[in-house]
Amino acid sequence: MSQWKQVQQLEMRLLEQVDYLYDDNFPMDIRQGLAGWIESQDWDSAVNDESMASVLFTNLQTQLEKVRSQEQNFLQRHNMKIIQQQLQVTASPALFLVLHLRACRREKEVKSSSCSLEQGALEQSLQN
Amino acid sequence: MSQWKQVQQLEMRLLEQVDYLYDDNFPMDIRQGLAGWIESQDWDSAVNDESMASVLFTNLQTQLEKVRSQEQNFLQRHNMKIIQQQLQVTASPALFLVLHLRACRREKEVKSSSCSLEQGALEQSLQN
Repeated sequence: MSQWKQVQQLEMRLLEQVDYLYDDNFPMDIRQGLAGWIESQDWDSAVNDESMASVLFTNLQTQLEKVRSQEQNFLQRHNMKIIQQQLQVTASPALFLVLHLRACRREKEVKSSSCSLEQGALEQSLQN
Repeated sequence: MSQWKQVQQLEMRLLEQVDYLYDDNFPMDIRQGLAGWIESQDWDSAVNDESMASVLFTNLQTQLEKVRSQEQNFLQRHNMKIIQQQLQVTASPALFLVLHLRACRREKEVKSSSCSLEQGALEQSLQN
């Protein structure tokens, strides 16, 4: 299961923390539409390598176009088109990637904190 | 069936005309989320009456909050929250309503043109 699917199963309190990671600079539509692809890329290396960042950013746009053209839902197809237009005028692909990486890492932390809480509760109940 | 549902059943060529009616100034998420409510309001009168426009705009925000709080889909709830934040700083509720009214009217025209085309094709096939 992708990290993104696991994140969506978190309780509301933690889900709200994830919610704040996404805005116009890094729309959640991209995270959802390309969940599997996003999680299989080497973002850490790209953030430190301008030409790699540029290639990854172009690949992301290609993936988006592929997903949009196959999307059956009119609203989601429309929103993806608007995001594609915004990405085309993004001044800094590298900044976009940094924002993206930060969001994915923070997602992971929130997910881990949920696991730690569950583990703690389990240990507590075993001790009682 | 709401006009919005009928519009989504149009052929791709006409659907693309509808697609262009919506952008950040009047997001399609609002049109979809509040389809029934939107189509039951008196927008024509509100456009010519500033105080009525203001009341309608406030009611629209209340409706959006209601729909958002009941939305189960994480992405759609998130997008609706962002739109609500944008609406709170909208400089001119009246302008928003004008854009809205224009989009709904144009939708109707596109839908009618589809009906005329179908009617024409039917008559043509009956004549042949």
